Amino acid sequence: MDISISPRSKAVQNRLTSPVKIVREGFPEIILDTRALADVECITTGIYSPLKGFLGKADYTRVIEEMRLQNGTVWPIPVTLPVSQEVADSIKDDVLLVQDDEVIGIMHVTEKYSPDKEKECANVYGTTDPAHPGVKAVMENGEVYLGGKIELFSEIKHDDFQKYRLTPAQTRTYFKEKGWKTVVAFQTRNPLHRAHEYLQKVALEMTDGLLISPLVGATKADDVPADVRIHTYEVIMDKYYPKERVLLGVFPAAMRYAGPREAIMHALARKNYGVTHFIVGRDHAGVGDYYGTYDAQKIFNQFTAEEIGITPLCFEHAFYCKACGHMGSDKTCPHGKEDRVHLSGTKVRAMLSNGEMPPGEFTRPEVAKVLIEAYQK
Amino acid sequence: MDISISPRSKAVQNRLTSPVKIVREGFPEIILDTRALADVECITTGIYSPLKGFLGKADYTRVIEEMRLQNGTVWPIPVTLPVSQEVADSIKDDVLLVQDDEVIGIMHVTEKYSPDKEKECANVYGTTDPAHPGVKAVMENGEVYLGGKIELFSEIKHDDFQKYRLTPAQTRTYFKEKGWKTVVAFQTRNPLHRAHEYLQKVALEMTDGLLISPLVGATKADDVPADVRIHTYEVIMDKYYPKERVLLGVFPAAMRYAGPREAIMHALARKNYGVTHFIVGRDHAGVGDYYGTYDAQKIFNQFTAEEIGITPLCFEHAFYCKACGHMGSDKTCPHGKEDRVHLSGTKVRAMLSNGEMPPGEFTRPEVAKVLIEAYQK
Repeated sequence: MDISISPRSKAVQNRLTSPVKIVREGFPEIILDTRALADVECITTGIYSPLKGFLGKADYTRVIEEMRLQNGTVWPIPVTLPVSQEVADSIKDDVLLVQDDEVIGIMHVTEKYSPDKEKECANVYGTTDPAHPGVKAVMENGEVYLGGKIELFSEIKHDDFQKYRLTPAQTRTYFKEKGWKTVVAFQTRNPLHRAHEYLQKVALEMTDGLLISPLVGATKADDVPADVRIHTYEVIMDKYYPKERVLLGVFPAAMRYAGPREAIMHALARKNYGVTHFIVGRDHAGVGDYYGTYDAQKIFNQFTAEEIGITPLCFEHAFYCKACGHMGSDKTCPHGKEDRVHLSGTKVRAMLSNGEMPPGEFTRPEVAKVLIEAYQK
Repeated sequence: MDISISPRSKAVQNRLTSPVKIVREGFPEIILDTRALADVECITTGIYSPLKGFLGKADYTRVIEEMRLQNGTVWPIPVTLPVSQEVADSIKDDVLLVQDDEVIGIMHVTEKYSPDKEKECANVYGTTDPAHPGVKAVMENGEVYLGGKIELFSEIKHDDFQKYRLTPAQTRTYFKEKGWKTVVAFQTRNPLHRAHEYLQKVALEMTDGLLISPLVGATKADDVPADVRIHTYEVIMDKYYPKERVLLGVFPAAMRYAGPREAIMHALARKNYGVTHFIVGRDHAGVGDYYGTYDAQKIFNQFTAEEIGITPLCFEHAFYCKACGHMGSDKTCPHGKEDRVHLSGTKVRAMLSNGEMPPGEFTRPEVAKVLIEAYQK
């Protein structure tokens, strides 16, 4: 049985927690929600290479159990297309993929299978706690996963950050033109404070170029919105970064908050952009207290350098130390807490909300101004 | 014909520009000069592994032509024992090795050959200019090179830096005990200014430990003496470096000023100490204008990562930038000369000689005080 939803307005799409199938002029269609659109974009532009579509059951099972595709390639998180049982029952083979009201591609559905969501969550997120945003998404999604290759007829549309939307083909060309043999990528879903700038510059001292690669897909409601973040990157890059060594290119994926496994995924994705080094800080892609502070660094030791194919640069918590007179970490600064400029996330948000500037050793004033404006709206 | 020199006082040894052979109680002996002693120490402690002795002709030739030993192993600079024709003629096979007045080992001489000094200098130093200190040493040395394995009966004696004289076996044990899986080494023949501290700390942010590895063998007369340098390292480490992450261990080799080739040699030697990463700055092991600023970094591209076996970390010129508010380089700072704290070597030496403190952003005051005292003596 095919189900039909009409009108397919943006409002409708945004309500969906997982793609649903509809029928237009006799062809079965699936309207992609924000998360599915992000996955389709990552698959079809090569960000998630070697994936060619949504995972079938054999890949799904080995990924959640061993962080590998069926053929042995390292892949840490299943990229799946969940639908309801009803929708699944109604699909035979090909199905059109729809963004808003426009057909953008086709999926050759070769498998429909029931996931083991408990096992998926326990293995991928290290928890089955429904308060975890990644677990919550899995649990709320449809009970059947569709597997099969996808092809796009037209690009996925975006109404923001156009100049920073670069595909892996485009970044690779850019790096080649610039003559950058080594490029370090910095994944972020936060504004850049001095600590982040320090890590980026430390890495850039040893590489030819820096790709600031902010995730702009779906994030938690309490993360700083992408447009505000992009603005902070612009003001800081304008004043404190050498233009000929730094590229800003957004990462269209949605956050999964899968901590260690997502660190591997973020690294593999950046390798596909042509990047050679990847910064992994404290609690990368973490949320709450679900992961150990350095678990996302340690997980890289489970694979050979060749299997990962991009060099992780693992950093500790950074801060400005007044006694050193420079930024550092526990690894490079011998002094105590009393000399270090540290503010908790809660404290910084409170200051910015009140229109107070954090110390310049913690946040560049240009960045603080953007954040204060945003917080006060 | 054996020649005999008596008495073999320290004064005599210091006069020698190359080892000479003598006879004691019927056994042929060679008194090692400072440079030969340094080579013997590096060979017998494994610093120059895989070398087991002074190079024979086949190794010598391939090293100067291709930077490889006869068996293909990368080795950039010939480690040779030059003697006069007269001494060479008098040697048959085994010869005792003497430090000052004490027999410390034996060399099984298997080859006596005439070097091609012009070619050696042109290839190893990139010049045959006798004003180059490396070329000068080669040209002044004896006209016959002895090749063969060496064995020591007792350690080479030193009257300075005892606590910092660590063999590769000792540093490897230390790194293991500390649990350092990655260790970066910094070779230096100079006092540590803020720029050097910055490079070391940048590297340490991405590694588990730092080996400050100052060369204490023979240097040019106008380099800062080793005892003064060691004192500057002590005062700066005491106040600005985390003790549990940093080890000071001297490197007993003599400087050759062979620039790019010596950078490879310095890296291979540090690999033997158990080090995984090696800092290569501007004009590493350079002198005058004989080498391009970054030649000592580029040369690593001539070999595979496996052949070198230690990761070079290549840095540009570093400085404090007032507009950035931190240390950086052209790669990380977008500002101009007017914002950067830079002093020429000549200027710094002039200030220190006059008892003036350089800016704190250039030299830590604790280091400056040690240097001022030394310059004013």
